[in-house]
Amino acid sequence: MTRRLRLGMVGGGQGAFIGAVHRIAARLDDRFELVAGALSSDPQRAQSSAAEAGIARSYADWREMAHAEAARDDGIDVVAIVTPNHLHAPVATAFLEAGIHVICDKPLAISLAEGEALAALARSKRRLFALTHTYSGYPLVRHARELIEAGELGTVRIVQVEYAQDWLAEPVETTGANRQAVWRTDPSLAGPAGCLGDIGTHAYHLAAFVTGMTPSTLAAELHTFVPGRRIDDHVQAMLRYADGARGMLWASQVASGAENALRLRVYGTKANLAFDQEQPNDLWLTPLGGAAQRLTRARVKSAVAAHATRVPAGHPEGYLEAFAQLYKDAALQIEAIDSGLPVPAESRLLTTVDDGVAGLKFIDAVIASHSADGAWVAV
Amino acid sequence: MTRRLRLGMVGGGQGAFIGAVHRIAARLDDRFELVAGALSSDPQRAQSSAAEAGIARSYADWREMAHAEAARDDGIDVVAIVTPNHLHAPVATAFLEAGIHVICDKPLAISLAEGEALAALARSKRRLFALTHTYSGYPLVRHARELIEAGELGTVRIVQVEYAQDWLAEPVETTGANRQAVWRTDPSLAGPAGCLGDIGTHAYHLAAFVTGMTPSTLAAELHTFVPGRRIDDHVQAMLRYADGARGMLWASQVASGAENALRLRVYGTKANLAFDQEQPNDLWLTPLGGAAQRLTRARVKSAVAAHATRVPAGHPEGYLEAFAQLYKDAALQIEAIDSGLPVPAESRLLTTVDDGVAGLKFIDAVIASHSADGAWVAV
Amino acid sequence: MTRRLRLGMVGGGQGAFIGAVHRIAARLDDRFELVAGALSSDPQRAQSSAAEAGIARSYADWREMAHAEAARDDGIDVVAIVTPNHLHAPVATAFLEAGIHVICDKPLAISLAEGEALAALARSKRRLFALTHTYSGYPLVRHARELIEAGELGTVRIVQVEYAQDWLAEPVETTGANRQAVWRTDPSLAGPAGCLGDIGTHAYHLAAFVTGMTPSTLAAELHTFVPGRRIDDHVQAMLRYADGARGMLWASQVASGAENALRLRVYGTKANLAFDQEQPNDLWLTPLGGAAQRLTRARVKSAVAAHATRVPAGHPEGYLEAFAQLYKDAALQIEAIDSGLPVPAESRLLTTVDDGVAGLKFIDAVIASHSADGAWVAV
Amino acid sequence: MTRRLRLGMVGGGQGAFIGAVHRIAARLDDRFELVAGALSSDPQRAQSSAAEAGIARSYADWREMAHAEAARDDGIDVVAIVTPNHLHAPVATAFLEAGIHVICDKPLAISLAEGEALAALARSKRRLFALTHTYSGYPLVRHARELIEAGELGTVRIVQVEYAQDWLAEPVETTGANRQAVWRTDPSLAGPAGCLGDIGTHAYHLAAFVTGMTPSTLAAELHTFVPGRRIDDHVQAMLRYADGARGMLWASQVASGAENALRLRVYGTKANLAFDQEQPNDLWLTPLGGAAQRLTRARVKSAVAAHATRVPAGHPEGYLEAFAQLYKDAALQIEAIDSGLPVPAESRLLTTVDDGVAGLKFIDAVIASHSADGAWVAV
Repeated sequence: MTRRLRLGMVGGGQGAFIGAVHRIAARLDDRFELVAGALSSDPQRAQSSAAEAGIARSYADWREMAHAEAARDDGIDVVAIVTPNHLHAPVATAFLEAGIHVICDKPLAISLAEGEALAALARSKRRLFALTHTYSGYPLVRHARELIEAGELGTVRIVQVEYAQDWLAEPVETTGANRQAVWRTDPSLAGPAGCLGDIGTHAYHLAAFVTGMTPSTLAAELHTFVPGRRIDDHVQAMLRYADGARGMLWASQVASGAENALRLRVYGTKANLAFDQEQPNDLWLTPLGGAAQRLTRARVKSAVAAHATRVPAGHPEGYLEAFAQLYKDAALQIEAIDSGLPVPAESRLLTTVDDGVAGLKFIDAVIASHSADGAWVAV
Repeated sequence: MTRRLRLGMVGGGQGAFIGAVHRIAARLDDRFELVAGALSSDPQRAQSSAAEAGIARSYADWREMAHAEAARDDGIDVVAIVTPNHLHAPVATAFLEAGIHVICDKPLAISLAEGEALAALARSKRRLFALTHTYSGYPLVRHARELIEAGELGTVRIVQVEYAQDWLAEPVETTGANRQAVWRTDPSLAGPAGCLGDIGTHAYHLAAFVTGMTPSTLAAELHTFVPGRRIDDHVQAMLRYADGARGMLWASQVASGAENALRLRVYGTKANLAFDQEQPNDLWLTPLGGAAQRLTRARVKSAVAAHATRVPAGHPEGYLEAFAQLYKDAALQIEAIDSGLPVPAESRLLTTVDDGVAGLKFIDAVIASHSADGAWVAV
Repeated sequence: MTRRLRLGMVGGGQGAFIGAVHRIAARLDDRFELVAGALSSDPQRAQSSAAEAGIARSYADWREMAHAEAARDDGIDVVAIVTPNHLHAPVATAFLEAGIHVICDKPLAISLAEGEALAALARSKRRLFALTHTYSGYPLVRHARELIEAGELGTVRIVQVEYAQDWLAEPVETTGANRQAVWRTDPSLAGPAGCLGDIGTHAYHLAAFVTGMTPSTLAAELHTFVPGRRIDDHVQAMLRYADGARGMLWASQVASGAENALRLRVYGTKANLAFDQEQPNDLWLTPLGGAAQRLTRARVKSAVAAHATRVPAGHPEGYLEAFAQLYKDAALQIEAIDSGLPVPAESRLLTTVDDGVAGLKFIDAVIASHSADGAWVAV
Repeated sequence: MTRRLRLGMVGGGQGAFIGAVHRIAARLDDRFELVAGALSSDPQRAQSSAAEAGIARSYADWREMAHAEAARDDGIDVVAIVTPNHLHAPVATAFLEAGIHVICDKPLAISLAEGEALAALARSKRRLFALTHTYSGYPLVRHARELIEAGELGTVRIVQVEYAQDWLAEPVETTGANRQAVWRTDPSLAGPAGCLGDIGTHAYHLAAFVTGMTPSTLAAELHTFVPGRRIDDHVQAMLRYADGARGMLWASQVASGAENALRLRVYGTKANLAFDQEQPNDLWLTPLGGAAQRLTRARVKSAVAAHATRVPAGHPEGYLEAFAQLYKDAALQIEAIDSGLPVPAESRLLTTVDDGVAGLKFIDAVIASHSADGAWVAV
């Protein structure tokens, strides 16, 4: 048995959603042991959150944590960054500088400059920088990517991707009760992109991950439906790809009745693929003029899907398993890096800092197009 | 029992798809008797097609038919026009001039000027001009419209409509075997809009019919995927509505694997509605934060739905029944007009010549935006 | 154009459900002209119903109608019998005796003896006797049958069939408002079998039609859930087939929330098939260990399906079209019989009087098993 | 933070399916630490399996393990038993005798006598005995139970439960490659019930868990489809409940194309409920005469569902989370028992040894009815 990697966490104190998800994901495949954390900027809260999470070493400050952990023989191997967006870059920088691998929530940063600097730093420090674009951890998303790579769709012509939620359909940020809503609608914490950064980037990444293609130009508009909100809660865009493919992207957090409706459809000259995150155990493949096939997680004969699943056919997996897959792949890569070995092939689908940079370029392009009343701009 | 109306038909000879559909639709509710036709411009074919369809009076020329029928005591009450698009306006004009009601396939005409002239003529002649936007004949589409009118969705914020097919994914028009493909991809017969006119207008009309809203501006692009094709086979557009709502429209005839996938989703402040033409016996209503409800045709307690259905709960209806509904409503209106009575309220959802004009404005706006590299243009 | 067959109808007056369905079905493919009827045993109602339905010759009595029509040069070719069950046999007998073809609603009769006599009479008179087991008119049901015949499922092992409705979940027959409920729960009109005869026989027939197999023995129980009801409203049975296959059949009219949920699943050594009457445009075929395929009506390359459909892919058909298919096939057979020609191959799937006899044997077997506390009895 | 409970495991060595599932489930909510194991009866395999699973103390023999662990200050609090069925009772007995809590795979034992002895022993020793009927860990299964308890369905009339798989459709046990298949089809290891014990008991338990009702009598038959197989691979049964409700149960492991299709439908006087294990994030509630509602995991406002879920709306959970829920509830109960406190109310839905005894009674009843050619026998 390989030693469990020692994991630290910054952010994710009581009341946060994504911190708890990271902890479960890290635990699920038993590759990590969570031993240190700076879970909140409020020292009291940091302490009680760490105790509740069973974390041995609690820090009041993430800078201190980076230094202290780097100095210990049994210091953390890797840190998970689950803070609001504006802290991603400074925290990641501190840990990279300390020689510690990073697993970071998306979006990578709140500006492209920040993101590119991070990418350069990670490379120069030869540390892993994994970005948790969760949905690329689903076995059927990975299988979809493989089908396209293998030419099963022919030439891709049309990409339709959307991500609809309804949790911001009303001004819930004004009540104070919903901590998520407060920071995600505050540009000083979330960055300039609201819905665009929170879920638009997921949609964009999913489409890019599966198709292997990114648009060359886009025409977009942002919108804020809820009066008084200081950030976009809706984005729609048209996409053009270099080889003539076309696409549309829609993301909204005011789509009443939608839970977490991330959906991708890709049409090629020979077939189409459809994936719905809310039914992640199914992938639909429909050939031109033919019968739709429901491909299931454990029955597609695919090494990439098998690598990303744990239970047999008909035993559904979900969001936590997809998230855990990113941690499993990160563990494989960290072990290899730390041993001076090449990164194992089966872990190669892990989202990278470059994916994060691509997401920031997408954000910038959307904002630029929006500012130019929907003109086509380069991504 | 009311007398069956005497129906004539122009177009719809052997090998045509939509002519046979009109004939079944006219027959289904037993309000019409098909007695005359100019089914083909080829006299031989016109004759044999009429014989096959059991039509008593066959004409070689539709102008002759309009004159002859208008002159008979037992001449037709109404003509169904099911020719390629470029003939809609001249044929309709001839029959309106002859005082005969018109039921016409969409798009209304191949130019806005033609369409507006037709609308004016229909009004001045006080004849019915019904346009067969089939999908508005579905009971649940009508119920959806009513739910929105009644405020069940709150204020409409987002409109997502799409219409995907795959029958033109390959250059089938070059083989000659597919007569539909030949004329629908020939601008001299179909008009300037290919996919845009053929199914884009259906998508546009469905959204407008259900929401009661038309966009004030749009940004669009057309595309032709199949090399050598002389007309668009793909259209994508972003929509802005006067009161701040946003929307997207996508129509494609090269979407491999798609059969006749016309889908509408409307999100309001309180709930969303979703309709999929391929499952027309279900309508989905999902409130903000709540459980999706599958409303079924015969169980929604709705007068408009009841008026548009024939069989009990769980006995599915389909496309022909929706089409027949337009004929049923047309019969109700023709009977009223011919009797000098007001048009019955229950028939009021029949698509009109003005809907056809709106569709032509949409076509023009898309082409204008496309020509201006996706600039926002008024509809 | 072939002459339209002259159709008469017995039963189906105002307020009846199935009479109107037969009339639409007869009209849909334009093979019949409804010219005579004895629509109600109440002469006034018969007259007004006939007028409403546009029927030229209305009779107060079906015996009189049989004689009168047989005597006319332009008398009916075929009669549709849509009365309550107890009249099926006497009415059919009268018309067969008069040399008139019969299309009869199911169940064939209210006793096996009656049914067998009818079968013998039809044979001796060489008249068509079609039984309207509607669901066998669906193109995908016919395609399912063909797939099994062709061995696509391997050896059939398991048959699961069910038919659930909820319209009798409450004692609606006691209010008098629901005429259907009144006669269908009255053993003197419906015969000894309630739910068993009304929908159990549909389920039984569907399974037999698709698999080509009938059980050799069954163990069953009937139940009446609604207090005071004089007839079963629920039946459940286990089935054994001669070659070792096993099955279950369930039918209920008190299944709250069910509309018209007739579903069949057949599992063979190589694959399974599933059909849901409420989604009749889809048929599911799933191989052992493989991906489910959604076969659609207009895309299965099958002559039997093509013969039973009217519109292209993605244009849904429904219950009325399935019903119309039986009429279309009946027309083909009547024309052949009347011309002394062999019955056309493409019409061979029309349900016969022998299917009706098989249904009555099933009813008898269920009642016998129920009476013997669920003992296995021969069918 | 509560101390993690120390967990041991018997069975679950390399190549086993359910052992790995138990380990993930135990880890997911961070309540357990796996510290000891006797993972295989083959000492070598036991050792290497334990090393692979990161287990500190590996035993070659489970008897030795029970004694040794009981003797240690830091000995295990609870043992997970994941052996073939014939060892459940002896292993559980040994650990209960040693004062160690037990979490045991189902079926409880291979005979009712064994099972009843275990239940008595667990009671006398005052130790937790949890049985892992996984499917009762799904939040929506628990919510379904609550809806019925709360009367939302009215009086339950009909129970339809089925569990179909296809992994034994062919004689895979003869190849030796599938270790699962080998022991599950060997009566000396699996006990007298094959499919009946393996999945029939899951179906039975799910129906009982959700409805709160067990049948008073049943009529059943077992069948073995695969030639040479020494145990049943198919079971079908009709059920009668004391208050007049009726039901059917079907389980098969030769249902080609089925993955893990456990489905429950319950019809009451007011509504029905439907749950499909393969889509566990949805529960369908359809009122009499009304619209089906899709209830989702995180949006039903239900304390029992909230207790059994970890992520927000639209983030799917699956089988591992359901399994983890049993472990979470077991942890809550063990902590309470060990502290002399009452078991917390929110953990009360954990499956018990008495549920296991009920399952064995069901097995006995099915075998008895089968032996009596399907006669109704008391459960």
